Amino acid sequence: MNFDTTIAAIATSPGIGAIATLRISGLNSFIICDQIFKHHRRELFSIKEDAMSHRAYFGNIIEGDEIVDEVLINVFRTPHSFTGEDTVEISCHGSSYIQQKILELLTQHGAEIAKPGEFTQRAFLNGKMDLGQAEAVADLIQSESNAQHKIAIQQLRGGFTSQLKSLRNELVNFSSLLELELDFSEEDVEFANRSQLVQLIKKVSMNISSLINSFKLGNAIKKGINTVIAGEPNVGKSTLLNALLNEERAIVSEIAGTTRDVIEETINIDGIIFRFIDTAGLRETSDVIEMIGVEKSFEKITNATVLLYVCDGSYCKELSDIENQLQIANSYDVPYLLIINKSDLMSENLKAEINAIKNCVLISAKNNEGLEELKEKLHLFITSDQETHSQFIVSSVRHFENLSKALRSLNNVLNGLQHNLSLDLISLELRNGIYAIGEITGEVSNDEILGNIFSKFCIGK
Amino acid sequence: MNFDTTIAAIATSPGIGAIATLRISGLNSFIICDQIFKHHRRELFSIKEDAMSHRAYFGNIIEGDEIVDEVLINVFRTPHSFTGEDTVEISCHGSSYIQQKILELLTQHGAEIAKPGEFTQRAFLNGKMDLGQAEAVADLIQSESNAQHKIAIQQLRGGFTSQLKSLRNELVNFSSLLELELDFSEEDVEFANRSQLVQLIKKVSMNISSLINSFKLGNAIKKGINTVIAGEPNVGKSTLLNALLNEERAIVSEIAGTTRDVIEETINIDGIIFRFIDTAGLRETSDVIEMIGVEKSFEKITNATVLLYVCDGSYCKELSDIENQLQIANSYDVPYLLIINKSDLMSENLKAEINAIKNCVLISAKNNEGLEELKEKLHLFITSDQETHSQFIVSSVRHFENLSKALRSLNNVLNGLQHNLSLDLISLELRNGIYAIGEITGEVSNDEILGNIFSKFCIGK
Repeated sequence: MNFDTTIAAIATSPGIGAIATLRISGLNSFIICDQIFKHHRRELFSIKEDAMSHRAYFGNIIEGDEIVDEVLINVFRTPHSFTGEDTVEISCHGSSYIQQKILELLTQHGAEIAKPGEFTQRAFLNGKMDLGQAEAVADLIQSESNAQHKIAIQQLRGGFTSQLKSLRNELVNFSSLLELELDFSEEDVEFANRSQLVQLIKKVSMNISSLINSFKLGNAIKKGINTVIAGEPNVGKSTLLNALLNEERAIVSEIAGTTRDVIEETINIDGIIFRFIDTAGLRETSDVIEMIGVEKSFEKITNATVLLYVCDGSYCKELSDIENQLQIANSYDVPYLLIINKSDLMSENLKAEINAIKNCVLISAKNNEGLEELKEKLHLFITSDQETHSQFIVSSVRHFENLSKALRSLNNVLNGLQHNLSLDLISLELRNGIYAIGEITGEVSNDEILGNIFSKFCIGK
Repeated sequence: MNFDTTIAAIATSPGIGAIATLRISGLNSFIICDQIFKHHRRELFSIKEDAMSHRAYFGNIIEGDEIVDEVLINVFRTPHSFTGEDTVEISCHGSSYIQQKILELLTQHGAEIAKPGEFTQRAFLNGKMDLGQAEAVADLIQSESNAQHKIAIQQLRGGFTSQLKSLRNELVNFSSLLELELDFSEEDVEFANRSQLVQLIKKVSMNISSLINSFKLGNAIKKGINTVIAGEPNVGKSTLLNALLNEERAIVSEIAGTTRDVIEETINIDGIIFRFIDTAGLRETSDVIEMIGVEKSFEKITNATVLLYVCDGSYCKELSDIENQLQIANSYDVPYLLIINKSDLMSENLKAEINAIKNCVLISAKNNEGLEELKEKLHLFITSDQETHSQFIVSSVRHFENLSKALRSLNNVLNGLQHNLSLDLISLELRNGIYAIGEITGEVSNDEILGNIFSKFCIGK
């Protein structure tokens, strides 16, 4: 694909560093750079004529007779570049003045400032990567934890999109056969083997279902696991948060109702980011501010990925007390761990019994006891969940929505086949399903979808 | 020079960007990178064995079987690199997680985290640049304005240090001849032609003097031109500052003594950064806070590079009034411009007369009149000053101090020759002068000096 414009941007993080890199891509990259780059030895050196791909050249960026900076440029000739176009990467000294100056010179000589994601968009449109991979580039840049990074790199490597592409191809074949039958509908022929079609659709649906199931985890990993700390007043929720953070983040006191505002802090546990949310204790109250706090607590619990329901162990004398608490925690209808605090005030017998219960963790937040076990159980809680899922994890809302659309259509196809519905309808639903899958891989796309995806990128990528 | 350690650092600005670059330099760079870099096509590719200098290779950074990132590496073989050592530059996706991860992998395989400026220090110690040039690298990275950038780039290109080096060589030659005479002191021979020596020393001294003279400007440009706005209360100093900034930065009122604290703001005028300093009006006062303010005003005036002495034009009826104000401004003994405010309330005759006076600017801060002329005169004031100086500008305190030392020593040599002092003394002073110049170019250096210089760098350079 040929674009009219040649685009340029600062590609490294803004601000002062030892070095910075600018990137220019497009038809006129070489001509533009030849206007401002002077090789340090070869007087007549021209990037367009003389530079070889994947080579570094040392020289000066000049403005008229003035030297702007000594730089190293990397030349990439089409199609062997990230975008697939002629590309030059300019590594200069990392002063913000110099970076801006060189960008200014590039635009003065005909380059346009790249829009966010425009380099990757060109890479996609030039067939260097599918849409899923392009989206992974943005996720990769944003990744802050090991788990986020893993999902992004898997997707960048092709991940589930290459699998989807081949399944989609099989569906397309059947779809053409069905269309052919429609053309010959008068003659009552059957080109598409029905039982093979049913089998294929079941295979694809299973595949898509497991991807859909992985989304809850994938999305949680991408955004951090919402971990809500809730429970009655004065059971030690804020003390737990402080102990986990190892700092006095939340104000703690003996007075019930100390915490009113929702307090959020993130902790990276073994590569997964958990967003801990400390809430006001759950109780009836006449204090207006506390009442608002309690309402917020319920709201937070509803949206929790994991609920840490904290109770005061010193009030638990028998196993039935624990079972009561488990019942309360369970009633919120979100995945939970029951955190039994103040374990230092409990009988050893009861503690031994509790240790056998999978969903329970004994801690003494005040004495820093049981916190490592809590973190381990929390991590396991998330990752063991992962194993029941597809080998791939979907983390993008866009992918999730398209997968759901595709699954609905495929289910309709199956239904239609089983109930002998009109071939017209079945064929239409199949096409819908194929279209929805194609939107994920980028095999079908439109400007609006692309604009939406790439505008979320950072500039220079 | 061979260093034991191989050093690594993130070289681009910290934070998230489209791409980021890490740099590794030293004896084991290639071996270390071979442990973690896998070429995207060639299974058995080894950087150490197969990579060519100044080439870019595409592949993966791996940790065991896991892919950390897809990267582009640039290979530079000794001595053809910035440091002169084997160097690899790794361009990865700009997530902070990935940057840290790759740095971690490099250190796990034997690299050490580079200290600030260590790459440039190695470049200097390997003879890739002299000390003045190495220092220019740091200045270049910090440069924020056109003028700062110009000085740094000039110095990076060799600037005055290459000139000093050749002058120093000539001095060294004479010094050896003098030493030789000392060895034959019994025989009363004269190897060193005295009149030639005098001539040379005069030439070097003149050169050094003009460099010394350029320091005040160079240092001002590097740090911004200290431009102090002072004058009696209520003449419109804060109004002038606000007009220059085009915002309501300082509180203004009809009441004399409104400004008490010193207010500072920088403005970039045609590539030179001026630091405008608004001060309390100069008067006797019984207000304790204002009194402190007035004291601070005097302090600021003493340290000004330029004083903008503001007076109220509405009180000036005749040229003698202006002359009085000029006398007051002049009495502070710093370079100044007399700013005559409230020009809208003055007679046209007087204004015409004032326009002929070089050091005067007529403005109406309230009506935004005359500000462009003020900026022009201010810029000219600094740059015309520059022309009377050396073609090179010294901006480093270290250089200035060494130049001053050298000049003192050379003056002593001249004196000694004129008064026929003992050859011992003259020879010693000459050696001192040569030493001081050598410290600038780095031809003589010690660990302390180097440590001091390079510790001011940013990491990764």
